[in-house]
Amino acid sequence: MSVPFKLSRGVLKTFPPPIPQAYAWAAKYVPTIERPLLDMAQGSPGYPPSKDLLDALSSAASQPSTARYSDVLGDMPLRRLLAKEMEIVYGEGTRIVADDIALTAGCNLAFVATVMGLADAGDEIILPTPWYFNHQMTLDLLGVETVSLPTNAAEGFIPSVEECAKLITPKTKAIALVSPNNPTGAVYPSALLASFAELAHSRNIALILDETYRDFILDSPPHGLFTASSTPWRDYLVHLFSFSKSYAIPGFRLGSIAASPAFLKHVEKSLDCLQVCPPRIPQIALSTHDLLPALRPFIRSNAAAIAARHDLFRQSLPSSWIIGSQGGYYAFVRHPFGGVKSNVVCQRLAEEMGVVSLPDGFFSNSQVGEAVDAGTWIRFSVANVDDDKIARVCERLKESETRFRWPLTP
Amino acid sequence: MSVPFKLSRGVLKTFPPPIPQAYAWAAKYVPTIERPLLDMAQGSPGYPPSKDLLDALSSAASQPSTARYSDVLGDMPLRRLLAKEMEIVYGEGTRIVADDIALTAGCNLAFVATVMGLADAGDEIILPTPWYFNHQMTLDLLGVETVSLPTNAAEGFIPSVEECAKLITPKTKAIALVSPNNPTGAVYPSALLASFAELAHSRNIALILDETYRDFILDSPPHGLFTASSTPWRDYLVHLFSFSKSYAIPGFRLGSIAASPAFLKHVEKSLDCLQVCPPRIPQIALSTHDLLPALRPFIRSNAAAIAARHDLFRQSLPSSWIIGSQGGYYAFVRHPFGGVKSNVVCQRLAEEMGVVSLPDGFFSNSQVGEAVDAGTWIRFSVANVDDDKIARVCERLKESETRFRWPLTP
Repeated sequence: MSVPFKLSRGVLKTFPPPIPQAYAWAAKYVPTIERPLLDMAQGSPGYPPSKDLLDALSSAASQPSTARYSDVLGDMPLRRLLAKEMEIVYGEGTRIVADDIALTAGCNLAFVATVMGLADAGDEIILPTPWYFNHQMTLDLLGVETVSLPTNAAEGFIPSVEECAKLITPKTKAIALVSPNNPTGAVYPSALLASFAELAHSRNIALILDETYRDFILDSPPHGLFTASSTPWRDYLVHLFSFSKSYAIPGFRLGSIAASPAFLKHVEKSLDCLQVCPPRIPQIALSTHDLLPALRPFIRSNAAAIAARHDLFRQSLPSSWIIGSQGGYYAFVRHPFGGVKSNVVCQRLAEEMGVVSLPDGFFSNSQVGEAVDAGTWIRFSVANVDDDKIARVCERLKESETRFRWPLTP
Repeated sequence: MSVPFKLSRGVLKTFPPPIPQAYAWAAKYVPTIERPLLDMAQGSPGYPPSKDLLDALSSAASQPSTARYSDVLGDMPLRRLLAKEMEIVYGEGTRIVADDIALTAGCNLAFVATVMGLADAGDEIILPTPWYFNHQMTLDLLGVETVSLPTNAAEGFIPSVEECAKLITPKTKAIALVSPNNPTGAVYPSALLASFAELAHSRNIALILDETYRDFILDSPPHGLFTASSTPWRDYLVHLFSFSKSYAIPGFRLGSIAASPAFLKHVEKSLDCLQVCPPRIPQIALSTHDLLPALRPFIRSNAAAIAARHDLFRQSLPSSWIIGSQGGYYAFVRHPFGGVKSNVVCQRLAEEMGVVSLPDGFFSNSQVGEAVDAGTWIRFSVANVDDDKIARVCERLKESETRFRWPLTP
């Protein structure tokens, strides 16, 4: 299919969305009652929202006022509640107020709005590789150069601050980190994040930190960036969060940015063009009767369940499949078929075994530096499924070793 | 407030969102029971959604499945219903299918995704002036040059195809039209749109047509672009629509793009980064029990009420205030204070008279060609208010003539 008018170089350079590709493979699998499709592809909560939230959403939906616009940066009640929530999550000494918060139509949109505020076409942003594909696609679309900071299994997919420092040029506008990481699941230690903060602060560039999976770290606080006095957070940090995973409401599209009001003044321009306002209904539902803080036990119990599921996955995985890192929603696993690219492995796993997962090729590309064992890793979204399905997935992975007739890595 | 890290040239060049500015003026007005604030600023439906839709939204909200992601381009049932709806709106011979449709988190986001698919930084897009401010802000943010096609009151703010043709260069990627227009209300005649279609088609550039206010034209079909055989629409047209006005649900953020599947394949990349998926709840509510087509009478009765309100506004307006054009949600009115910029007039109207409206300065800038009488026009959103408030606004405009102590245009 060709388009008779001219397309942008940005869109032509950008990879097609990976998730629909994985589901196109899955569509070729013929499920049976005994062997249903087992979907560990998209980072999608395998648990429903809390009953209290469903009730609040339903009640908000029936009010005509919910259908009206909110402010560009979102409704003040939820911005206040989220600021308070962050003060609790990030521990004593954290000071965050509603003016530091923008609400967005999802965390991807928060990233796009942030990049629009920081970088022009031709500028550079540093991403650890493997990266979250939508971050890299966004940079391609905007003509911003992706500078790859390779990570590897030997280091637990933790990026090196020293290597990152070497990549900074006059064109560098930001370093963008995701912790717990997507796709690797690696949880960046507090000291590492502090070092990245010092690097960004000292070089006057922004540190974008996407903490979509923050609530699935059992230790708290996840880091000390919000309380560090040597690197005041508003001077360098653009903090991104998603309500999709913690509150199990991805379809309602709600995310947030925490940054200095001075930066948000500029981001407000992007957000006005991108969203006009964030969707109203989740804002109202989460702030009516101060529901947001009341959902903390819901979050903690899901986090504990997912942590247990990570353990189960590690214990049930056939011994030839090696976990490189694990955390948040994801486990990053090396498949045992030496010499076969994980794209091919994932396609056969989906089409023949009914196990949907994402190959590391979706989180990197050949134009940039890659780890030495790139092409052998697969992302499994452990949070998508229940314990029973974890066991079934592992059984089918074991089956694949004989069925695929590929030699196993010795 | 300064930002310690570097900002993009794009965001620094972009104007702050106009609506919050107007509401900042309004916040200085002290309303009383006798003299409430009269808001004709944002294009916001003054009527609630239909009871059937509110019920469907509430019912959808209580289902856990509503909280899940949909496809990047939206759920198939609503894409199918919208395609069918467009076949009815655009009349006999129209053929639009679900694969021609993408659903988006609002019509602004549809515009951003479209521009990302067409233009890189340094490219040009032609916008009639006065323009819809978010269109121009989006181009600034992306580093795309706005090429202004001035319109004026003498021509009823209708753009000239001949003048437009002269502006096309090798860097031109699209012409973007809004009809009924925002801010002028001008309804572009069918023959004019056909000429723009021929121009875009013959020059292999895209014609972006934003028909957010389409359902408020009483004559139908609004144009023949979808049935013209000499200019097959999929070869040049990117059609944008918003559910915000027709269905009175701006807070639910739903819009759409109709274009060739070949172009949507590329736009899907932008949409994956921008929205992941459009908000799920309005998609489900509008497609359950085929609700969308059942809301046609709701739309028609609101359209008739707004048309009557336009008449009332025209009849009630003091004779010194001149309507330049009128249609859809808006009336574009020349204020009577010769020599005073409408920005100043609108500020005083909001702060002192409690009448909130938007000056033409918000829809143009001094760097581009302007009509000879630019600076004297004000946009009133007639759809925001009821008949009683229309009368009160007109009374206060009359009062302002003596109160402001500015000489009137002879």
